[in-house]
Amino acid sequence: MTRAAVVAAPQLRDLVAALFVAQGVAPGDAATVAHCLVEADLRGVASHGVGRVPVYLKRLRSGLVAARPVIVVEDVTPVAARIDGGNGLGFLVARRATAEAVSRARTYGIGIALARRSNHFGMAASYLRQAVEAGCAAFVFTNASPAMPIWGGKAPFLGTSPFAFGAPGGEGTPHLLLDMATSVVARGKIRRAMVAGEPIPLGWALDRDGEPTTDATAAYEGLILPLGGPKGSGLSLMMEVLAGVLAGSAFGGKVGNQYLDDDRPQDVGHMVIALRPDLAITAEDYRRRMAALVARAKACPTAEAGGEILMPGEPEARLETQRLRDGVPISAEDAAGLCAEARRAGVALPAALADVA
Amino acid sequence: MTRAAVVAAPQLRDLVAALFVAQGVAPGDAATVAHCLVEADLRGVASHGVGRVPVYLKRLRSGLVAARPVIVVEDVTPVAARIDGGNGLGFLVARRATAEAVSRARTYGIGIALARRSNHFGMAASYLRQAVEAGCAAFVFTNASPAMPIWGGKAPFLGTSPFAFGAPGGEGTPHLLLDMATSVVARGKIRRAMVAGEPIPLGWALDRDGEPTTDATAAYEGLILPLGGPKGSGLSLMMEVLAGVLAGSAFGGKVGNQYLDDDRPQDVGHMVIALRPDLAITAEDYRRRMAALVARAKACPTAEAGGEILMPGEPEARLETQRLRDGVPISAEDAAGLCAEARRAGVALPAALADVA
Repeated sequence: MTRAAVVAAPQLRDLVAALFVAQGVAPGDAATVAHCLVEADLRGVASHGVGRVPVYLKRLRSGLVAARPVIVVEDVTPVAARIDGGNGLGFLVARRATAEAVSRARTYGIGIALARRSNHFGMAASYLRQAVEAGCAAFVFTNASPAMPIWGGKAPFLGTSPFAFGAPGGEGTPHLLLDMATSVVARGKIRRAMVAGEPIPLGWALDRDGEPTTDATAAYEGLILPLGGPKGSGLSLMMEVLAGVLAGSAFGGKVGNQYLDDDRPQDVGHMVIALRPDLAITAEDYRRRMAALVARAKACPTAEAGGEILMPGEPEARLETQRLRDGVPISAEDAAGLCAEARRAGVALPAALADVA
Repeated sequence: MTRAAVVAAPQLRDLVAALFVAQGVAPGDAATVAHCLVEADLRGVASHGVGRVPVYLKRLRSGLVAARPVIVVEDVTPVAARIDGGNGLGFLVARRATAEAVSRARTYGIGIALARRSNHFGMAASYLRQAVEAGCAAFVFTNASPAMPIWGGKAPFLGTSPFAFGAPGGEGTPHLLLDMATSVVARGKIRRAMVAGEPIPLGWALDRDGEPTTDATAAYEGLILPLGGPKGSGLSLMMEVLAGVLAGSAFGGKVGNQYLDDDRPQDVGHMVIALRPDLAITAEDYRRRMAALVARAKACPTAEAGGEILMPGEPEARLETQRLRDGVPISAEDAAGLCAEARRAGVALPAALADVA
């Protein structure tokens, strides 16, 4: 029985990249995918980290995802790009979409990229970061397979698609990275309650029959509810419109489930809008004003005595700093998945994983 | 004592326009303002309707808002406009910003307008509607005076700024208009509980000292909490960045309060992004796909037996149809405000209001 482990980020990246290369992915692309997956674990978003490696590899093996996609970018206007993702890994399509939106924003102030025929793209914050590191603010939207009811419904229809917005940091302040599921809680929280045998609050989820439940197991097998009822439902529906209807991908409950739909590609869509922060003010003013915003926020009296006010993305950035230093914790389940894939592909395990296998 | 009334929309618009003209606003601008305010009441958003006429007029009278603003539009790039609102009424600045973003989107696929030196713009859905009626999808963002704590804080810092997104309707389906406060509930709900002498759920609000409360009166005098904790806080902060920091207006708790700050302009900022829905698909495909999205959503099994699934903006559109036919209900408090202003300006009241005055 494989045990949990702590692995240094570079070794984890090398392992993940080697597994994707073994499945036919080009080395540069495999490095991109490994970067994104390990980035999620570094930031504490384990639900979108290396634990998903087996399902991505499975879909590559079965040909449901193209290992060497032909990604086609067309200029619709000088500021708008339409992208056919060629059924490639979502990481590659989303990075390309972000790069195209950013390059247009640099010239014209704002740029948009719409991608169809893509797949699950992991953690949205990866692409926010790509944009802010290139000096742009950005919205990154995706649609996703049905997991939530639309407000008023009781069957899966909407994705728990993340709403994601990022803005470059100011003078001495970190990048602002807002990456939030449109569900009331992350599915992982329900899973933890289930494992602990604890109930969940009413209003988090419905059971399989669409009835409200406080039973974590019934909820895990059922449906997560949208954040704030009609509000989270509306935000997720907005992404169905932007990344689904407008982008030309599947929409309205038709996006394939990465785990369950073994007979067809997912046909996920993405939309990225990038904009320069110095359109109405100078770049210098931007950095000064962002720093002032953060300073004023942090000077607010805190709800908890001795508490601290953190900007969106700041808790994750702190965790990343710590984990880059101390290593990335990998659960027993995720370690088992990686070890099995490494054995299958004949890829060497880093010592930290070989020890627990 | 003035009583509640029901007034036909055209008469209500004429009254409101006449009141603004009497305060020095140009007739065309006054008609725009009246249109937006009555539109809010028609759609059931009384908090942003004619009940606010007295405060807008008061600020015009005291010179804190310019009756005849010089609104200056500069092209930063072919797709980006920077707007100085000239401290005009927010309705006028936001309509201009929306028109500028839409005209750029029509040519280039996407367009952005950033406005500073504006004021409270009423109901965001007014500008969404302007954009979708011109055939564009749009984001309409504003910042606002502090009314909510940032997540982790207990003093007012963020506005309960609405997140607003709209998309043109499909073949036979209404426009999709998502206009949602970033607070857990509308302030009006707390007010109603206070008037009814009922408690409110824990988690809606803090009292004046920043402590959680179920007392509606203490909550009304205190602070509304953000939707979903860090999520609503993050969305509101995003608008501080986009409509405040980037647009060049006040930000970070410095936007003036329309009711309380009698010594300075509000300096509100807005950002509008408009985009054509036919960038990656044809206009015909767009109408067909939107209609399919709505049809699939409405075919979902409903949570309540015999229930109905409504799209964002659909309940408001139904109410508007009904109120255009039957008249707009005006509360006793709002009727009193309108009657007092009409007397002061020497403007004739419509019969329905004269009867209750």
